[in-house]
Amino acid sequence: MDEAPFQKRLDDLKADRRHGAAELARLALGILAESAAAKAGDGPALRQTLLERASRLIEARPSMAAVRNLLVLFQADLAGAPAENLDALRGFAAAQAKARIVESENAASAAAMACAAALGENRTLLTHSLSSTVLYVFHDLKKRGLRVIATESRPLFEGVALAERLSAWGVPTTLITEAEIGLFAERADACLVGADTVLENGDVLNKAGTYPLALAAVDAGVPFFVCAEGFKWMPDGSAPALEAMDPAELGVPAFPHVRVENIYFDRTPARLITAYFNEKGRIQGARP
Amino acid sequence: MDEAPFQKRLDDLKADRRHGAAELARLALGILAESAAAKAGDGPALRQTLLERASRLIEARPSMAAVRNLLVLFQADLAGAPAENLDALRGFAAAQAKARIVESENAASAAAMACAAALGENRTLLTHSLSSTVLYVFHDLKKRGLRVIATESRPLFEGVALAERLSAWGVPTTLITEAEIGLFAERADACLVGADTVLENGDVLNKAGTYPLALAAVDAGVPFFVCAEGFKWMPDGSAPALEAMDPAELGVPAFPHVRVENIYFDRTPARLITAYFNEKGRIQGARP
Repeated sequence: MDEAPFQKRLDDLKADRRHGAAELARLALGILAESAAAKAGDGPALRQTLLERASRLIEARPSMAAVRNLLVLFQADLAGAPAENLDALRGFAAAQAKARIVESENAASAAAMACAAALGENRTLLTHSLSSTVLYVFHDLKKRGLRVIATESRPLFEGVALAERLSAWGVPTTLITEAEIGLFAERADACLVGADTVLENGDVLNKAGTYPLALAAVDAGVPFFVCAEGFKWMPDGSAPALEAMDPAELGVPAFPHVRVENIYFDRTPARLITAYFNEKGRIQGARP
Repeated sequence: MDEAPFQKRLDDLKADRRHGAAELARLALGILAESAAAKAGDGPALRQTLLERASRLIEARPSMAAVRNLLVLFQADLAGAPAENLDALRGFAAAQAKARIVESENAASAAAMACAAALGENRTLLTHSLSSTVLYVFHDLKKRGLRVIATESRPLFEGVALAERLSAWGVPTTLITEAEIGLFAERADACLVGADTVLENGDVLNKAGTYPLALAAVDAGVPFFVCAEGFKWMPDGSAPALEAMDPAELGVPAFPHVRVENIYFDRTPARLITAYFNEKGRIQGARP
């Protein structure tokens, strides 16, 4: 993949609201796998191109640790690879990117299995937004008495897409507005969300609305769980910017003195979180 | 107004989502004023009709104390009136219903003035839904440096209608989703909402989403104020049912295993409320 199509894919990734952090990280690795076929005079030039593209992909989604963590691993893979043989490097880079995709999928799946095992049978789970990792959990529990309460998840209603999926699996699902979370938290056995990023101190960046849901869970005395593979943990103390998206997504007419804000992520403090699940199992949260 | 048109107006009132509690109470009084011209054989028969219609209007909106309180007052007015002269009773009933409308308007306006005076100049106020009483407050503060953050207020987006109104007044307004309340509470000087009903223990029934907003306000250390005239206070310990509206308002396609819930009101515990404002002034809340 040469520069022009790469730039197009990069722009798409930047604007992508259909996929969560883990999926975006895998999409970025897929772009790098295809980039292994990019025009290059020799091995070192190809390596340089791939390293730079990885950096540009990381910068495209600053809120998402999984993109950064997996792409930094790919960069490290590449930095250590011999570059004398251009074709060998192409093969190595493509294979390595694909191996990291599999590694990410396995981690997410293992985190979801640990979470599903801990949650157990006949549960009513309240979730917000549409997390591919949480979807794994629901898939695992769908024959074991699972019921789901899903928020519609404005502005793009991914909760409706989730409800459609759950319906196809035969899972009894209740769809509510974000405004109704205070009414429904107490009807759930637990709240369960994915994460775009888990910060070093345990705070969670996820779709805006996660933080109010955690507050409602605490007030209702209902546990609040986060399921997110280790690649979503931010290794240092940094907190990425919260990405804002196009205000037009809210579909509001233009009024002279009105500014529409469409910040996509919020930060849920660790003190509101009962436990995390990753591929290593359950990690106790800071909530008393 | 005879039975058939009355029934139509009653049905409209029951389904009305455009108006808040105070406005609905005044609409109900207006219906009773028109009902004073209903067909009746004599005074006692007219009185009976009006008393029954008031009871049916009260039952039409069980979540709203103002409807009940004002209509019970009207019923008491009527019960004490002489009924020998049918025409005199018609005139009395119509005048009394109109007087209660004025009384309600004056109380709401006085509550709003007390609230505006206490809030003061150059404030950023975060509100949810569209309260006619809160609109009075904003109107009073619009030339005094007011800025408003308004939630869009799903499902019917009355926050967008509010933003349009504020824009026409030149008030700088930020419009957000309910999901963004956790991000924006800390940017406000205070949260301010109206009420459909204030219970005897200080809990507030208001548009669903009010309770999560109060949780966000507490977590952000921002005061949470309720502005509601005394007619909205429920005099006894009863807590009315929370009205549910047509799930079709959410605009979700039908899926076999999915139930859409559209509960219109939630209950904000008194412990989350900093203060109330009614026509007598400021009342300290239970929030520490």
